[in-house]
Amino acid sequence: MQAETIILNQERSVTLTAYIQPVGGSFSNITRRPAILVIPGGGYQYCSNRESDPVAFAYLKAGFQAFVLHYSVGKDAVWPNPLEDYEQAMELIRGNAEQWHIYPDKVAVVGFSAGGHLAAAAATMSRNRPNAAILGYAVTGPDVKGCNPTAPDAVAAVDHKTCPCFIFATRTDEIVPVENSVDFMSALIKAGVSFESHIYSYGPHGFSTCESAVFEPSRLHSDRGPNWVGDSVGWLKEMLGDFGDGVMTEPKCKPYVSEDYGPTLSVDCTIGHLLNNPAAADVIAPIVDAINHVADVQGGDPMALFGSLPLSTALGYAKLPAETVAAMDNALRSIENI
Amino acid sequence: MQAETIILNQERSVTLTAYIQPVGGSFSNITRRPAILVIPGGGYQYCSNRESDPVAFAYLKAGFQAFVLHYSVGKDAVWPNPLEDYEQAMELIRGNAEQWHIYPDKVAVVGFSAGGHLAAAAATMSRNRPNAAILGYAVTGPDVKGCNPTAPDAVAAVDHKTCPCFIFATRTDEIVPVENSVDFMSALIKAGVSFESHIYSYGPHGFSTCESAVFEPSRLHSDRGPNWVGDSVGWLKEMLGDFGDGVMTEPKCKPYVSEDYGPTLSVDCTIGHLLNNPAAADVIAPIVDAINHVADVQGGDPMALFGSLPLSTALGYAKLPAETVAAMDNALRSIENI
Amino acid sequence: MQAETIILNQERSVTLTAYIQPVGGSFSNITRRPAILVIPGGGYQYCSNRESDPVAFAYLKAGFQAFVLHYSVGKDAVWPNPLEDYEQAMELIRGNAEQWHIYPDKVAVVGFSAGGHLAAAAATMSRNRPNAAILGYAVTGPDVKGCNPTAPDAVAAVDHKTCPCFIFATRTDEIVPVENSVDFMSALIKAGVSFESHIYSYGPHGFSTCESAVFEPSRLHSDRGPNWVGDSVGWLKEMLGDFGDGVMTEPKCKPYVSEDYGPTLSVDCTIGHLLNNPAAADVIAPIVDAINHVADVQGGDPMALFGSLPLSTALGYAKLPAETVAAMDNALRSIENI
Amino acid sequence: MQAETIILNQERSVTLTAYIQPVGGSFSNITRRPAILVIPGGGYQYCSNRESDPVAFAYLKAGFQAFVLHYSVGKDAVWPNPLEDYEQAMELIRGNAEQWHIYPDKVAVVGFSAGGHLAAAAATMSRNRPNAAILGYAVTGPDVKGCNPTAPDAVAAVDHKTCPCFIFATRTDEIVPVENSVDFMSALIKAGVSFESHIYSYGPHGFSTCESAVFEPSRLHSDRGPNWVGDSVGWLKEMLGDFGDGVMTEPKCKPYVSEDYGPTLSVDCTIGHLLNNPAAADVIAPIVDAINHVADVQGGDPMALFGSLPLSTALGYAKLPAETVAAMDNALRSIENI
Repeated sequence: MQAETIILNQERSVTLTAYIQPVGGSFSNITRRPAILVIPGGGYQYCSNRESDPVAFAYLKAGFQAFVLHYSVGKDAVWPNPLEDYEQAMELIRGNAEQWHIYPDKVAVVGFSAGGHLAAAAATMSRNRPNAAILGYAVTGPDVKGCNPTAPDAVAAVDHKTCPCFIFATRTDEIVPVENSVDFMSALIKAGVSFESHIYSYGPHGFSTCESAVFEPSRLHSDRGPNWVGDSVGWLKEMLGDFGDGVMTEPKCKPYVSEDYGPTLSVDCTIGHLLNNPAAADVIAPIVDAINHVADVQGGDPMALFGSLPLSTALGYAKLPAETVAAMDNALRSIENI
Repeated sequence: MQAETIILNQERSVTLTAYIQPVGGSFSNITRRPAILVIPGGGYQYCSNRESDPVAFAYLKAGFQAFVLHYSVGKDAVWPNPLEDYEQAMELIRGNAEQWHIYPDKVAVVGFSAGGHLAAAAATMSRNRPNAAILGYAVTGPDVKGCNPTAPDAVAAVDHKTCPCFIFATRTDEIVPVENSVDFMSALIKAGVSFESHIYSYGPHGFSTCESAVFEPSRLHSDRGPNWVGDSVGWLKEMLGDFGDGVMTEPKCKPYVSEDYGPTLSVDCTIGHLLNNPAAADVIAPIVDAINHVADVQGGDPMALFGSLPLSTALGYAKLPAETVAAMDNALRSIENI
Repeated sequence: MQAETIILNQERSVTLTAYIQPVGGSFSNITRRPAILVIPGGGYQYCSNRESDPVAFAYLKAGFQAFVLHYSVGKDAVWPNPLEDYEQAMELIRGNAEQWHIYPDKVAVVGFSAGGHLAAAAATMSRNRPNAAILGYAVTGPDVKGCNPTAPDAVAAVDHKTCPCFIFATRTDEIVPVENSVDFMSALIKAGVSFESHIYSYGPHGFSTCESAVFEPSRLHSDRGPNWVGDSVGWLKEMLGDFGDGVMTEPKCKPYVSEDYGPTLSVDCTIGHLLNNPAAADVIAPIVDAINHVADVQGGDPMALFGSLPLSTALGYAKLPAETVAAMDNALRSIENI
Repeated sequence: MQAETIILNQERSVTLTAYIQPVGGSFSNITRRPAILVIPGGGYQYCSNRESDPVAFAYLKAGFQAFVLHYSVGKDAVWPNPLEDYEQAMELIRGNAEQWHIYPDKVAVVGFSAGGHLAAAAATMSRNRPNAAILGYAVTGPDVKGCNPTAPDAVAAVDHKTCPCFIFATRTDEIVPVENSVDFMSALIKAGVSFESHIYSYGPHGFSTCESAVFEPSRLHSDRGPNWVGDSVGWLKEMLGDFGDGVMTEPKCKPYVSEDYGPTLSVDCTIGHLLNNPAAADVIAPIVDAINHVADVQGGDPMALFGSLPLSTALGYAKLPAETVAAMDNALRSIENI
């Protein structure tokens, strides 16, 4: 493995450390690798080594190229300096994709605490969006003003261009209230974005990988605290694909939960979304009648029962002929999504 | 193990099945056991066997006494019938605590889908509150009207008497939108109640233990789907204690995250909560000055930084003498919590 | 679940407890189930409850039908009484396969300590062989004389009809020396039988599932002690298949490591075994020449390098045409295996 | 982290790559670190990158300093060249302990296949013994002649100075027969040395960390294959201690299972060992009488029952007064162990 520290901004002491693994040779089925950018925390006052290399090792072991960003802190943390540091790092990573054996569309970020704020800002506001973001006890909401008064609220910035996120924290975090993580989930739901989340019962702020090597032995935490590391590796493989025979396998999980956010409508939109569009409501009228009938028998409100169901799932339940489904899809795809 | 099915209500076909393990003898360090009541789902139309015994086995293996409730469904599901079935079951379990070798203050519930709604109702509205509740892809919010128009919204009922909860679901649940789980978390946060939660990236509604024995092989789900079972056992041990030498060990995690909800104030309340009370604000004025000074140096908003911190934690950081802390605690405990 | 205790032998107090789960209905993809017979330990003096139901629960949760055998102990333990108790239990289980919804060719045993001896006897000496055996800190060797002077040495009885085994123990077992487990592995290797084994670094004898519910808290053990339970479930699925759509899936692992023990030879026999048969040695002479050439280049002893390799694997390396391989297989299958 | 490749022997292309993590600062409770030396396989013909860095990352994440040795291969592999490469590496690691922040008495090795042979040679024959050895599908027995005719049999070299070992392999290894691992366990048992072992049901030779990043996707293996990595980290912490407050915690597991190999006898020797020494047999005669009495009642052979039990364990069962035990220990410690 090659290790190299690149100075991104001499004046603000911004650096990017690159850990680059080889491809080919003994790694006969690997031609490129996914990558991850580690963004440590430290309240925008410093960058914690406890949340730098030990985190990178976990993803290196899983076959990723890994990078650690030490961004502008202290008086230099005035916004948008840290976000510009991120943009510069991401442009370098994707710009060097060939030389560093990286898939430029498979670059994730993982950030902790204030670094989690920066990772959330990358996911929601940057020009160079990551392909997935892991947010650890991140200050995503307005609480960020407590440590960096110039930094923006990332929860408020979530929209349907936000990348899929993996969120973890402890319920008892005494520094960053867990609302930050739960409010971020709520915002992702409203935007239809994929996510996974793990809120552990108890443990202090700043637990990093929750191993003895990064953690004073006196700090009590749930036994489940270390699980996020392996879980996040599994999640990245679901979102980005896994090593196959010379190419990555297809992702198992999509970045959006429904197709309600595409340029046109389709049978993969939810029934509730389609019914809001008069032209689409006409197309799907027959299936809606059937739904109303089912709801009538069961005694519930049809939209409470079926509004969030993708139309394709309901059509699958109804066992309609494939041609009927294809015709409905064609009709819907001719309708602009507004 | 003794297995027995008790008819709770002949007319509505309500039954409680009890699986009772022995104590003493080979189990030399066990005099009583914690217990769990399993509440299967089925849209208030039926009770699913896939969410009954297979779930009970997991907790039996961990040493719990286990019960399965088949409650009022179909036309009998009109509220409050199902909740009254629960009350009757819980009264029987705690009433027979000695005969069934149960700790009456260590009885949890676990419910799924509509059964998760009933478990959430038990946690928030019942006369016989459980000591912990596990809610699986539960219909906790107003969506419950879709399958049972008479059933109440459990999210709206969360208050500071709600028991600690363990919440799990998948992001892509096509029947019960994941909002139900995330909104329930938000309500628990507002009420200061302990919880743990796991939202998995993808998987269908109704995955029960997510093992091949309860799950059609064609239904795709995240590899992490089965983890909630073992994680919930670990969480129950944190909340209720574990088997020790003849008595249970002390719980590692408290049912409330702060003491902001007790009858009087104390140093274990959060700083933000204390500052809202003028008498308490006077008592803690010296420490607030110190906090303001720290915030001044760091450049942030003091309450954003420290408002959610228990005062005792801040006093620990400040390394004040024990007598000073005790005096402050005494002063605060003389103030009623309003 | 139905629970029933059947008296197998009144005089010797031998009982079989059956825990039977339903099929069909909610379990729409399950028509029958695999089964497991739990054989607790107790030095042939008693049957430990700590190694009875808590073990059964683990396999019930995985979808198995489970049985617990309380066999002849004390003065009744004179051989072959315990083995005859096993035979009677296994005949009952397989005889009732239809009524109890069991696949009669997917019935495993799991035994502990002296019960592990009985399970090993079942695997090696019985008329009614199990389809897989799990042996926990089992007294498989001559040490069994220490607790039952009439009981036979199971290590000495291993032959190529022995079923596949899963073996676990701790290195520091103070009652049953770990040699028992390792010598059993050596015997399985000589017989070509499949196995998996886990010897944990430290822990006392009799740890059962290694959970707090079966284990005095003062007894120290490796954190990995509880892992055998889930690992053995995974292993059983590899050996017996897993729940599919109405039928079990194909096993992923064969009961024999090579085909050196079939009625005729084939390309799936090891090269060393084939060379011991003059007729076969003629058939495979061309490939042996190639092997000798490789060994010559690498500088090693060809049989040390390739003797234990199945011929089919070597042919795969050599990329011979399928017809050549088929012709060689036909020629070998006409040679009796002696 | 600093990465540095040091040329140990230019002529034979022998290199040591050092990955060195900082101590102090953010790692406030860490003053030094344990270390591990990774020895890749490759049939003594080459050094596989698949068994180099990906393995090092696992231990780096756990807080170890990590080193990768590329030793003499091909025509240079003539013995003792590879062992001398190891000696040179270990002398450098321990010699630089202060500069590299290493505990010189907490340096492990991990080797694979032919590199597992070299690690086993280090554990059994070297001047600079490691403090623990992890052996993956290692060619420990005479099979090593197949790939390196000059290399010695490590199984035959096991004695009571051998360090504790962690052994893993698959039952179906088609290149290195699993006998190598099981025979090594048997030798460790005879020498009283601590070990842990995991033999997985099936999987090919050379699976390294068994992750997709090191493993062609077409190569089938047991789902449990990757578990050895985390298990070996847990085992190293048991043998070497874990990070505490500025010092490592006490090991939980001893390098020897009994004290039968110390310079003098003691109550921690096994009863069988003590009875072989006439002077010791006199000292322990009273307790042996009691044992014979127990065996008489139970009907077994006393030495089969109790021979492998440490005397101290038997004394504990008998609840003798502490002074009696101390007096017996004093008497035994005056007897030389021959």
